[in-house]
Order: sequence, then structure tokens, then C-alpha cells
Amino acid sequence: MRPTTGWRADSATRTLRRAALERRDLRPDDIAVRVEYCGVCHTDLHALRAYESDANGPLVPGHEFTGVVTEVGGAVSGFSPGAPVAVGNIVDSCRVCRMCRAGQENFCREFPTLTYGGPDRQDGTTTLGGYSREYVVSRQFAYHLPAGLDPAAAAPLLCAGVTVWEPLRALGVGPGSAVAVAGLGGLGHLAIKMATALGATTSVVSRTPDKAGEARRLGAQGLVVSTDSEQMEAVRDRFDVVIDTIPAPHDPAPYLRMTAMDGTLSHLGHLGPVTVDTLDLLIGRKKLSSAGSGGRSSTAAMLRFCAAHGITADIELLPSSEVNTALERLEHNDVRYRFVLDMSDLA
Amino acid sequence: MRPTTGWRADSATRTLRRAALERRDLRPDDIAVRVEYCGVCHTDLHALRAYESDANGPLVPGHEFTGVVTEVGGAVSGFSPGAPVAVGNIVDSCRVCRMCRAGQENFCREFPTLTYGGPDRQDGTTTLGGYSREYVVSRQFAYHLPAGLDPAAAAPLLCAGVTVWEPLRALGVGPGSAVAVAGLGGLGHLAIKMATALGATTSVVSRTPDKAGEARRLGAQGLVVSTDSEQMEAVRDRFDVVIDTIPAPHDPAPYLRMTAMDGTLSHLGHLGPVTVDTLDLLIGRKKLSSAGSGGRSSTAAMLRFCAAHGITADIELLPSSEVNTALERLEHNDVRYRFVLDMSDLA
Repeated sequence: MRPTTGWRADSATRTLRRAALERRDLRPDDIAVRVEYCGVCHTDLHALRAYESDANGPLVPGHEFTGVVTEVGGAVSGFSPGAPVAVGNIVDSCRVCRMCRAGQENFCREFPTLTYGGPDRQDGTTTLGGYSREYVVSRQFAYHLPAGLDPAAAAPLLCAGVTVWEPLRALGVGPGSAVAVAGLGGLGHLAIKMATALGATTSVVSRTPDKAGEARRLGAQGLVVSTDSEQMEAVRDRFDVVIDTIPAPHDPAPYLRMTAMDGTLSHLGHLGPVTVDTLDLLIGRKKLSSAGSGGRSSTAAMLRFCAAHGITADIELLPSSEVNTALERLEHNDVRYRFVLDMSDLA
Repeated sequence: MRPTTGWRADSATRTLRRAALERRDLRPDDIAVRVEYCGVCHTDLHALRAYESDANGPLVPGHEFTGVVTEVGGAVSGFSPGAPVAVGNIVDSCRVCRMCRAGQENFCREFPTLTYGGPDRQDGTTTLGGYSREYVVSRQFAYHLPAGLDPAAAAPLLCAGVTVWEPLRALGVGPGSAVAVAGLGGLGHLAIKMATALGATTSVVSRTPDKAGEARRLGAQGLVVSTDSEQMEAVRDRFDVVIDTIPAPHDPAPYLRMTAMDGTLSHLGHLGPVTVDTLDLLIGRKKLSSAGSGGRSSTAAMLRFCAAHGITADIELLPSSEVNTALERLEHNDVRYRFVLDMSDLA
């Protein structure tokens, strides 16, 4: 086993504590990655707050990180020590089901192996995430980090980024598309940047008008204030694609109303039951959908696109020792727009 | 006013009784239609069962009918006395909103004028439906009935038919598409016929295996028994489009499960709230949608398509005097697949 250090959940306090960890010895197709930067995702917060004991395995969060290859397994080609790489929120899948064969390992029928908290497909151990100095991963689920992308600001592309990228691409967003993004956080600000770079006209939907400047800075042409009924009426049936990143339960009706005929509302920010009135779908043949994470090929394509268009997340970089502060502030939406932990303070 | 006869609701018994009715004098763009055949839709049944008094106007159901032009208004061109015509469930709309301009008068923002029970846009009177010997309608909402379509069996195309036609077309169903149809009733049997004629491979989804022969006769290649978990598992992620015509509240989850990646479940048979788990949309980026009725251009296109492919409804033709029997039997799903009333027994 390979000793390393990371931030592990303590069930008594539901905070993270620095701990000695072990990574597996390299399998033939594994690479070892020295983790440099790891983004802080809402999922990490949910996992920690729900963490009760080690009964289901230890919890080390973190599933959007960048780093440098330090060693490769005997069967690895295409990755060499020193190469900058990125890893997202899945690290394995069955590789043979209909979804895997379609390049959508994120939808693997046998469920993909999550970067943390998942049972490893070979030895059954619980995967430990990227809040750590080293990660060992199959080269199939590591991505070359293209030159020109800042490795700290690129880390959130691997989860937040690809989660908005896949629906934007699958829904055909491009020149001529009108896209609205509800919720201006980690996912939302990347959705605006990507949709704008894809050639769409974009609008932010927000509860207050004070985000107008930010919206424009990110590339949006407009801001729609969701609490202003006149503004909401003015955009009725207007947007081909609405990317809803609001991270709490809410009524989809106002966002369906602004969706254009035959358009799609992609409900991304919140998991759980959603109730919709059939009439809100019927009138205009509107579609309610969702999406999450990305397959290997679209993750690689997303990184190339971001490099070509100079897109990274707007981040607040903290030493990894401040991870508990970051999670607390994230809980209160006090971040623009994503925390990234600098792992260089770990041995 | 123009005297005629029809079947009007009696609030005491919630049945229909033969009654003298009046139609408006022809406006410049009106045509008068001698109604020959009128289909019996679930909507008619709901309207009658909910009918409490004439306070909101008299109720004469019927919104899918065929007949013959008997007289035309002064500004009418394109329709002459003797021409076979068809009328569906909307007879007017604002004609200027975004939806009307897009040819989707069925989604008119000001709400389309329904063929019965709607306030007429010019004089405010309650429209009376096609269970009657004469109907007066703007020529804009009448359609030429193509030669070769049996006028009795074509009547249900005007509501049931176009309600499944529009989503099939909007969702791009054609050669190579895999389409499943849940619920083999008025809408469902037409969906199978149309999707098959569009070039798709089609399957019926039914609770019991005894519809296999019927499914094949209608053009379907397969029958999926929804109560058989092995069969349901075998079609997971399989159908690009699922047309759900089940006319009662039900869980959409099993139908989303059989929807293919990036595919659409069109929930058509039931109006009201639907609750879906976000994960059932997320995994495979699946879409929940609905549809209803049709715009003028797609209604006309649907009739041309049906004539070219010899598609009409499978009907049970009854004299209009048996309308109450038809409604009662419809309530118990005792019809294959649509009742049509023969109006020749009305004076």
C-alpha cells in the first residue's frame, strides 16, 4: 500500500480531520496522481453532514481535482510521470452495459464507481476522495489537463463543469440558441460561460437584480429577476434551454413557463422528487429533464473546449487546512463561485 | 340564427337529451357544416360527469367531427357547398401571439376557443359541440377531408389523432426510431398506426399479454407486459419515444425506465400533477413531456399523411341516439377503439 495524507470525516463532530491514509499499490492500468488542487462541491457538504459513522467505510470527500502523474502501472500508455491530469467524480464503471458502450459511463447500469464513498470494483474497499495528497486511479478515468488551463481554476470543471456541459451539448446549444441559467453558483456561472462560448445568447435568472453586473461579466446578455412578475411574463416561452442549478427543492413551473416551445428545462441543482402539472408540459410540448456528471469522451471534449475558449471556474483558493471553513461558508452560499483547496500543505 | 338539433346535457341526470339548438348566422369567414359523424372522446365524458348546471352555459359535447359544407360566408374562399370537411377541438385563437404565429393555435397564450364549452371570441356565447346536426365555424379552423378517408373512421383523427401526431412529429419519429405506446385505446391505437407508418419500430405496453394479437394487427412489432418485471427490465433504456396514453393518474417511473438516453416520455393520457424522481430523469438525461391537440398546419398535414397511408381510427359506429350508451361503455373502457356517432338520425 502507498501511504498518503488527507482530510477524513470525524463522525463525532462531522468535520474533517487530517489523517494518514493508504492508497492501493498500482494495478497494471493505474496511475498515481499527486493531487494539487481539489474543488469543493455541494455533494461533499451533503456527504459530510449525513456522515454518521465509519460503518459504511471512511469518508474522504473530493471529486474534482487536478494534479501531476507521479508513477504509472505496467500496462499504462499515454500517461507519463510529470503529466498534468484531472479526475472527476467517477473512477470506474462496468464498461460493458449499453450506457458504458455509448460512452456514458456516468449512467452505467451497474452504477459507476464514485471517486469517494463507492465500493472499488476489484477489491470492494471504499474509495477515498481527492481531499488528499495522492490518488490512485485507472488511466481510463484520468484526463490530460490541456495546456493553458490554470490547474486550480480548472479543477471544478471536472464535476460542476461537465454537469452543465453534457446537457448543453445534448440539447444542441449553439449559435441561435437562447439559454437561461437559474442559480448563479458553481454550476450556474460555468453554464453561462460555456453556453456563451457555444454561441448562444444567455440570461441569468436570479431572485434579486444585484447580480446584473456579474451576469454581464460572465457573458450573459440579460438578467431576469424571478421575483418580478412583469419580467417573468416578458420571457414566457422564450428560452430553448433552461439550466436550473438551484440547489434546493422548488417548483419548476416558473422555469417551464420561460422555456420555449419544444424546449427543455434541465433540472440539475437538486435531487429528489419534483412535481409538475401536466398542463405546464402540454402547452408548448415542453420537456423536463435532468443530467449529472459526464462520460469519458464528453469530459475530455469539455476540457478541450474550455482550453480553446479560456474557460475555467471563478474560484477562491484556500489551503486545504481551511477545508472546514470552506464547507461552512459553502453551506451559506458564501462563495464566488467555487472553493478550491490547495493540497500543497499536506505532506 | 340557424335552428338545428343536438344532444345537450341535462344537469339533473348528467345524461344527454335531444334538444333544439341554434347556430349563429354566418359571419363573413364562416362555413356551415352538416355534421355527419362525431367521435366520442374521454373529454366529453369528463365534461358531462362534471356538469352541474347551465350556469356556465349549456353543454353540447363533441369535438372531432366530419361533415359536408352546406353554406359559406361572403368572404370565404377555398370551401364550397358539398365539400367534405373535418373540425377538431379548437375553433378559434387570438391569431397574433407567439404560439399562434408559430402555427400552434392549440397553445394560444390567450387560450384557444374550444369547440364546445368555450366563450366565442366575438359574441361571448358558449360554443356548442359536434353532437349536433349543424356546426358553424370559421373556415380557418375547418379542414378539407382528403379523398379516400372514410368520413366516419376519420372523425377521431381530429382530436385523438392529432394529439398523438404532433408529439410523434415534434420528437422526430421516423425510420430507425423505436417507439413504445402505453395504453391501447383511442389515442394509443392511432399512435401505433402513425408511428409505424412514419417508419418507426413500435411496441405496445399493456398490463396483460392478451393484446399481443391486436398489437401486431395494428402494426406493432412487439408487446411489453408492464406487470412482467423481466420484460420491463429487458426494454430498459430502449425506446427513443414513449407515448403514454393511460387515462388515469399513474407513476411515470416505469415508462421513464424504458425511455432511451436523451429520449422522451410524452405523458398524454392524463392531465394533472405528475411526480417524478429527478434521478429517473438524470440517469440517461431523459425527458418528460406532454402534448395535446394540434395547430392548424399540423392538423392539415396529419390528414394528408393519414390519407396517403390509409390510416383511420378503428371505430364502433352508433346512431347518435345511443350517445348515452356510448359514454357509459367508454367509462368502462368497453370500446375498440373509438365510438363514432352517426348524426343522420337527427332532423
